[in-house]
Amino acid sequence: MSHPAIAALAARFPGRIETGRAIRDQHGAGDSWHPAAPPEAVFFAESTAEVSAALAVCHAHRFPVTAFGHGSSIEGQTQAVAGGLSLDLTRMTGILRVSAPDMDATVEAGCTRQQLNAHLRDTGLFLPIDVGTHATMGGLASTRASGTMTVRHGTMRDRILGLTVVLADGEVIRTGGRARKSSSGYDLTGLFTGAEGTLGIITEVTLRLAGIPEQTAAGLYSFADIGAATETVVEALQCGLALNRIELLDGLQMQAINAYNGTAHPETATLMIEMAGSPDQVASDLEIFGDLAEGHGAAAVPCATPEAATALWKLRHSALYAARALRPGALSLSTDVCVPVSALPRVIAAIQAEIAAAGIVAPLHGHVGDGNFHLVMLFDGPQEQQVVSGLHARLIAMALEAGGTATGEHGVGLGKKAYMQAEHGPALGVMRRIKAALDPQGILNPGKILDP
Amino acid sequence: MSHPAIAALAARFPGRIETGRAIRDQHGAGDSWHPAAPPEAVFFAESTAEVSAALAVCHAHRFPVTAFGHGSSIEGQTQAVAGGLSLDLTRMTGILRVSAPDMDATVEAGCTRQQLNAHLRDTGLFLPIDVGTHATMGGLASTRASGTMTVRHGTMRDRILGLTVVLADGEVIRTGGRARKSSSGYDLTGLFTGAEGTLGIITEVTLRLAGIPEQTAAGLYSFADIGAATETVVEALQCGLALNRIELLDGLQMQAINAYNGTAHPETATLMIEMAGSPDQVASDLEIFGDLAEGHGAAAVPCATPEAATALWKLRHSALYAARALRPGALSLSTDVCVPVSALPRVIAAIQAEIAAAGIVAPLHGHVGDGNFHLVMLFDGPQEQQVVSGLHARLIAMALEAGGTATGEHGVGLGKKAYMQAEHGPALGVMRRIKAALDPQGILNPGKILDP
Repeated sequence: MSHPAIAALAARFPGRIETGRAIRDQHGAGDSWHPAAPPEAVFFAESTAEVSAALAVCHAHRFPVTAFGHGSSIEGQTQAVAGGLSLDLTRMTGILRVSAPDMDATVEAGCTRQQLNAHLRDTGLFLPIDVGTHATMGGLASTRASGTMTVRHGTMRDRILGLTVVLADGEVIRTGGRARKSSSGYDLTGLFTGAEGTLGIITEVTLRLAGIPEQTAAGLYSFADIGAATETVVEALQCGLALNRIELLDGLQMQAINAYNGTAHPETATLMIEMAGSPDQVASDLEIFGDLAEGHGAAAVPCATPEAATALWKLRHSALYAARALRPGALSLSTDVCVPVSALPRVIAAIQAEIAAAGIVAPLHGHVGDGNFHLVMLFDGPQEQQVVSGLHARLIAMALEAGGTATGEHGVGLGKKAYMQAEHGPALGVMRRIKAALDPQGILNPGKILDP
Repeated sequence: MSHPAIAALAARFPGRIETGRAIRDQHGAGDSWHPAAPPEAVFFAESTAEVSAALAVCHAHRFPVTAFGHGSSIEGQTQAVAGGLSLDLTRMTGILRVSAPDMDATVEAGCTRQQLNAHLRDTGLFLPIDVGTHATMGGLASTRASGTMTVRHGTMRDRILGLTVVLADGEVIRTGGRARKSSSGYDLTGLFTGAEGTLGIITEVTLRLAGIPEQTAAGLYSFADIGAATETVVEALQCGLALNRIELLDGLQMQAINAYNGTAHPETATLMIEMAGSPDQVASDLEIFGDLAEGHGAAAVPCATPEAATALWKLRHSALYAARALRPGALSLSTDVCVPVSALPRVIAAIQAEIAAAGIVAPLHGHVGDGNFHLVMLFDGPQEQQVVSGLHARLIAMALEAGGTATGEHGVGLGKKAYMQAEHGPALGVMRRIKAALDPQGILNPGKILDP
């Protein structure tokens, strides 16, 4: 017996409510180790008005709703753990407006950053959110995503000027606007950004774009150890160099990348960097960075051509898949934490010592200019999974002890929920009050971020 | 008969609850045209624990609480319109920690940016929030303030990593942390920033600092009209020049500044700009900007020395006082709106036409790189006040129609409350729900931003 909400949805949207097994299975899993949890039905919405109508029906029936984009979230955000409706937004790919003079654009939630950037190509503008996967704007907004260019351009929190959001009962609101800044009332734009669809469903996003830099230059720097690499990072940040990207990879991650891509870079702590700006500035800052790195004993491989730079960033973006390929057949717990940059060497050394003692394979890479790093902990079988879970808890405890956060850019979902009390303390109670005020029936992505 | 809460507060803080007329009057007024509204008592808190204890007492007695810093807010934020307690935080000036490698600091809410920047001088760091007045960190945070360097460094929203907040019932929470970014749960830091003390009282602020630039250079550019100036701004922003400040002043504002400071700059639409970066970049970008401005017919006066640049910014920061001095004895309605940069020429031309037709003296200046501008509308007597109020409403309608906001950096307080429905529509209902969830008795700065 299917839920009466499904019949009501089918009556409202004839022939468009999908309940087939394959499509439900696909919508019940993200790109993570979390067990799949298929929804009871899937609806491919085509407009904000349709999202609103679907939510009104679900609200009337107290039927859970979980938004779905490209399914690339890795903390279980899209798993429909309480059943209900998976609201697929991937047909809402509209680019509603672009203003080149104002360097902003409004897009629908199902538009990917690749689609937007392709559309923008002739304007000299782009959205500087560079995550390692295809993802929709709604997903990027809802997890407060960031990626490799955050050190220069900030996260989705910094790029979003306004949102269209459908509330739990179907009411449509607009937050923010097109002004670059505002002190007009509560920051609802910031509140819905990163809320993982638990407070409302984002259907449109107004974004602040960036200019494509006149010149970029990249390089790879191999260090004897992670401490030497992260000290170089701190110095480079303090010099205010025109860094566009500064990425750390440990020896094991470089080994994985070499094996996966057929390259032969030194398999030791590595920084991949990119400068962006005017030709003079890029050349001068790349030289300064080279001197800093050399001072810490690095061997440098500058990218001589744009093609070499593109190849470098392709290597970087293969990191997750390369890591997983180290142990074919094993599962992976991919996690990220973020700490003050000065704490990076200490936190990384401490967790890597525990990983080594436990005999776990766990390559490390990260957006080290933000203090953000990822570990891909591979495991096979329940015994290793338990060891990996224990290491995960230790990692988060270390990050919080250093003044950091349990997740820099992946979000909370199911995977980090257990750590919210430790991170936020009594502030978690404030989050619960906001959740109860905006979704009193608890139908929006139940089971994620926090429990009632 | 004084309120029983005052006796309870006096019992909890013997000898420290002030009820004298002069001190209450001083705490009932900001720097604005809004009528003064003195509190019933004033408490100079010295710690978060004291703020917590005072709020617990006020909560038990349903006694309103309005936070007070340097009293420089200009939308009536500090007026105690429902009476109650003024919670003065100016004794909480502690600089609790600074980390030079992480470029961050934690300060108490009563610390001013001048105090912090003086403390930081030896570190090569500073807080790049440059408003035209002394103001406390709690006030800057609570109004989501910004100032002249926003075009480069963002607003308080972008600079705040974490907060300590005392809730309506006295509970103390910590939001955010020291990580540069986080996707861990709802963005409470953003929510309390700009909430004007209506959701909680900010007692500590963790700030992201910036490096003092290696080199700066400034210049003044006089244009035939505002359109030529704002077109130059749009082009400069699109070129990605190393702009640190780009400020617009209209002819009347320049006339006011000349009269106030004894200078003799052309009394026409003017841009004051600052570049910051490496010496090469600053020199090159200043030249590019000069070419852009010349292309729009500008006459340039570069500042040849650091002293000349300092004098230029002193002129700029005199704008409000110079404007008021145009009509000694008159009152002033100082307002700000923010629009997409491309809409600036149109919105400014339209409102200035209406101002001229109404015969009102209202010089204009603003942070034009953000699309944010201020009008200081002078009035004398109730008839002119009514005319000015009408112009104010027209200005906000024009800003909203252009996709902008009713206030870029002054906040809502009493002065913009009437425009919140027009700006936010149904989203105002969400703000009301959040207010009710966090301050169910409505004791925190009642009458500001929104009504229940």
